[in-house]
Amino acid sequence: MPVFFCSPQLFGLGSVAQVVMGGDSYGNYLSINLGFGLGVTMGIHIGGGVSGAHMNTSVTFAMCLIGNLFWKKLPVYALGQLLGSFLAAVTIFWLYYDALQDYCGGNFTVTGPKATAGIFATYPAPYLSVAGGFIDQVVGTAVLLLCIQAINDQKNCSALSGTSPLVTGLLVALIGISLGSNSGYPINPARDLPPRIFTAMAGWGTTVFSAGNNWWWIPVVAPMFGSVTGVLIYKVFIEMHHPSGSSLYAQGTEESVK
Amino acid sequence: MPVFFCSPQLFGLGSVAQVVMGGDSYGNYLSINLGFGLGVTMGIHIGGGVSGAHMNTSVTFAMCLIGNLFWKKLPVYALGQLLGSFLAAVTIFWLYYDALQDYCGGNFTVTGPKATAGIFATYPAPYLSVAGGFIDQVVGTAVLLLCIQAINDQKNCSALSGTSPLVTGLLVALIGISLGSNSGYPINPARDLPPRIFTAMAGWGTTVFSAGNNWWWIPVVAPMFGSVTGVLIYKVFIEMHHPSGSSLYAQGTEESVK
Amino acid sequence: MPVFFCSPQLFGLGSVAQVVMGGDSYGNYLSINLGFGLGVTMGIHIGGGVSGAHMNTSVTFAMCLIGNLFWKKLPVYALGQLLGSFLAAVTIFWLYYDALQDYCGGNFTVTGPKATAGIFATYPAPYLSVAGGFIDQVVGTAVLLLCIQAINDQKNCSALSGTSPLVTGLLVALIGISLGSNSGYPINPARDLPPRIFTAMAGWGTTVFSAGNNWWWIPVVAPMFGSVTGVLIYKVFIEMHHPSGSSLYAQGTEESVK
Amino acid sequence: MPVFFCSPQLFGLGSVAQVVMGGDSYGNYLSINLGFGLGVTMGIHIGGGVSGAHMNTSVTFAMCLIGNLFWKKLPVYALGQLLGSFLAAVTIFWLYYDALQDYCGGNFTVTGPKATAGIFATYPAPYLSVAGGFIDQVVGTAVLLLCIQAINDQKNCSALSGTSPLVTGLLVALIGISLGSNSGYPINPARDLPPRIFTAMAGWGTTVFSAGNNWWWIPVVAPMFGSVTGVLIYKVFIEMHHPSGSSLYAQGTEESVK
Repeated sequence: MPVFFCSPQLFGLGSVAQVVMGGDSYGNYLSINLGFGLGVTMGIHIGGGVSGAHMNTSVTFAMCLIGNLFWKKLPVYALGQLLGSFLAAVTIFWLYYDALQDYCGGNFTVTGPKATAGIFATYPAPYLSVAGGFIDQVVGTAVLLLCIQAINDQKNCSALSGTSPLVTGLLVALIGISLGSNSGYPINPARDLPPRIFTAMAGWGTTVFSAGNNWWWIPVVAPMFGSVTGVLIYKVFIEMHHPSGSSLYAQGTEESVK
Repeated sequence: MPVFFCSPQLFGLGSVAQVVMGGDSYGNYLSINLGFGLGVTMGIHIGGGVSGAHMNTSVTFAMCLIGNLFWKKLPVYALGQLLGSFLAAVTIFWLYYDALQDYCGGNFTVTGPKATAGIFATYPAPYLSVAGGFIDQVVGTAVLLLCIQAINDQKNCSALSGTSPLVTGLLVALIGISLGSNSGYPINPARDLPPRIFTAMAGWGTTVFSAGNNWWWIPVVAPMFGSVTGVLIYKVFIEMHHPSGSSLYAQGTEESVK
Repeated sequence: MPVFFCSPQLFGLGSVAQVVMGGDSYGNYLSINLGFGLGVTMGIHIGGGVSGAHMNTSVTFAMCLIGNLFWKKLPVYALGQLLGSFLAAVTIFWLYYDALQDYCGGNFTVTGPKATAGIFATYPAPYLSVAGGFIDQVVGTAVLLLCIQAINDQKNCSALSGTSPLVTGLLVALIGISLGSNSGYPINPARDLPPRIFTAMAGWGTTVFSAGNNWWWIPVVAPMFGSVTGVLIYKVFIEMHHPSGSSLYAQGTEESVK
Repeated sequence: MPVFFCSPQLFGLGSVAQVVMGGDSYGNYLSINLGFGLGVTMGIHIGGGVSGAHMNTSVTFAMCLIGNLFWKKLPVYALGQLLGSFLAAVTIFWLYYDALQDYCGGNFTVTGPKATAGIFATYPAPYLSVAGGFIDQVVGTAVLLLCIQAINDQKNCSALSGTSPLVTGLLVALIGISLGSNSGYPINPARDLPPRIFTAMAGWGTTVFSAGNNWWWIPVVAPMFGSVTGVLIYKVFIEMHHPSGSSLYAQGTEESVK
């Protein structure tokens, strides 16, 4: 089942792997943005009909909180998301195993000139404070939710049905282009935590949790707040001004990604 | 209310911040073009149903001048646009506060090797004369309006309904790709002035107004002329040749962006 | 009237100007591809309803030859295309006048380290023979026509109506990405000749015609052959295999660009 | 007939040629991704109505294996695909003949600083083992098939009809962005083998087969396994969960590319 949660991370992590190990010859920051972004597009196409393309745990959480998804569905979805992301990390590790051996001689490190942990999980810029990182993730996720709702809100100026997976993917790329340099824009617990756990198991050690001033928990917790914030902003400033006022989430599909 | 005017500048300023402070590792000129362009796309999705996505003060002005919008709406819209843009500047400053401290040690300057004022407002190339700058903004805004009208003119070869936010965003990116190197293509008073005022207040000082031979007023005034020029060119050369000749602006939505 | 023939060249020449004079800081080869490509998209949106978006003289010629356009329309369309392209060159010269003065001190040259003639017209790579250049333009234009017909052929797997301007623009960008390094992919007499004439008048002198072993006539003549070749290949290999066999050009819109 | 199988390779090989011989001035890794990706888009537009856009031999094979295409059609399609790809290689060689002579003085080599064989066929990274290369191609092709099925599955969250050629092209670009650095993502026997045979005949010699530890057979064989894997994963994890359970391949169009 988690196969359809796997796609965004598979493409995203792959695009980082190419740039980290291959340098300019195999991409650049923009190709990483497109890797995660278009990966989300493919994830929605794959999982949209089965699970409503729920790929982002913080979004699933917000949907439960505002009453558009039963709480009992949360653990099922979250588990699928976490497993799918873990599976993506395993696949990328397997696919780029020869490359990893060649690049760092099997010496998997979190920091230093041949660091490779950043292929799998995010790490903050050296200057980023804990508060700054928390704000970064709240804002990034809130913006994601605000735009996703607009893209899919048929009572607003929504994207043409059938093109919203592409537009949503471009949104994720856009967040990377604009709000990504502080911490690599995880904006989703399921994007970040499972690959981090995988690296801890696969040879990078527990430094993956302690690095960046114990950065690991911020992409898990802060997106929850950001997601709820984004939903509320949209409801208060946009949705409540719609003529009929009925909820956008009645149909409950396609609104939760990355 | 100004929340839906905020998006283009939020993404745009963020993309500049990444490139100014992070260099090639976090983007390039093309990513800035996409930041502003796709930011407009998202702005239309967010604000299209509520305000007709009026995000560009010069466009709102032109709409009033040709009789498609009541003059009394101009101050309301303009205020929303200015506040939204100011809010975007505050958010980006807040989001990249740690980065700014790290990059220039809290010494916010308008010129020099560590200049950061260009993250928020535009500054002309050193060679640009006042006349050249004025022409640059008139032409850029006229081209913007000419194309926006075509994209949304159902009697012409318009973009498929529901895809015009994306096509309009690509148009804004295209203007950056083609007509941006003289002055950073503000082409909208609301894009440029409020972030400039913010920087004056936040530590960059009044140099933000005097720099570039008092550049600040050109992105405020010239787009007004450009916008009217673009509307008139479209009316005279295209719209008047439509069979029925009825006005495109009857429906009054989606035609004013960035 | 020629205003709607102006767009592709306006954006295209502008994107070259930024890269020639501004270097990596204002774009790269890919941004030039997008400048010409998305410029075609905008040109179709602007001119599609009035003139069928005829922007490419070689395409108009082919349409006449196969009987889908009256020959008497050829001079009218060709004149509009040539004037529009000339107008684009004038506008770009005007817009980047300060930049040109700054870049080369008013010394407009066709070759050398500060050459700027390439902003306006194409010049072949030093290695390119006359025969090689001719082949280059025949193949490039044939591929353009082959794909344009497919994109607009409702009996084939055509692009969704209303999205074909975008897909056609991406096609032009793609030709630049793939078939552009020999000679800058003019593939249209109207793209190349009028800006070249303009440069001869504006200070670059007659070298613009003699340069590249008298390159100037190849982008004028070879696309005519390429265009006819592309139309015939599509007719023989694709269109004649359609069930009904009726002509795609009955409606006569949107099939001739760049 | 093979004319409509030609397009993806024509654009793809051309984009590699520009980067190999022209360097950064004529593209980069991302432009190669777009060359192959948008080339597939054009290939579907050209061949979709006539052949269902079957361009990938491994996909045609999988369709036969699962009973959606008669086995007797396999040799016809495969032959067309191989001839089309060979024709593309001939055209690119012809088009860039002057450039090749200039770049390497007519000394066509597979390795070394002026190697040009990589324009036509793929070669693995030096570190890649045979097993690693096989896995690379199985995974890459499986992901291709998984996503193509989702993009075209009307019972899932499919792409809007008429936009699937573009989305499929972006998928191919995405695979290059994410899963391409090990071996250049052939993921299709017809993309790789015929241009390789052409180079053997045109002056590069039999080294094109022995290079990379006899790499040539992996892009021929491994995609067959990957294609079947991708189809099965989609059937088991997605399609079998559709309410009605009827086969996606009844219509049999557009599902086989690159």
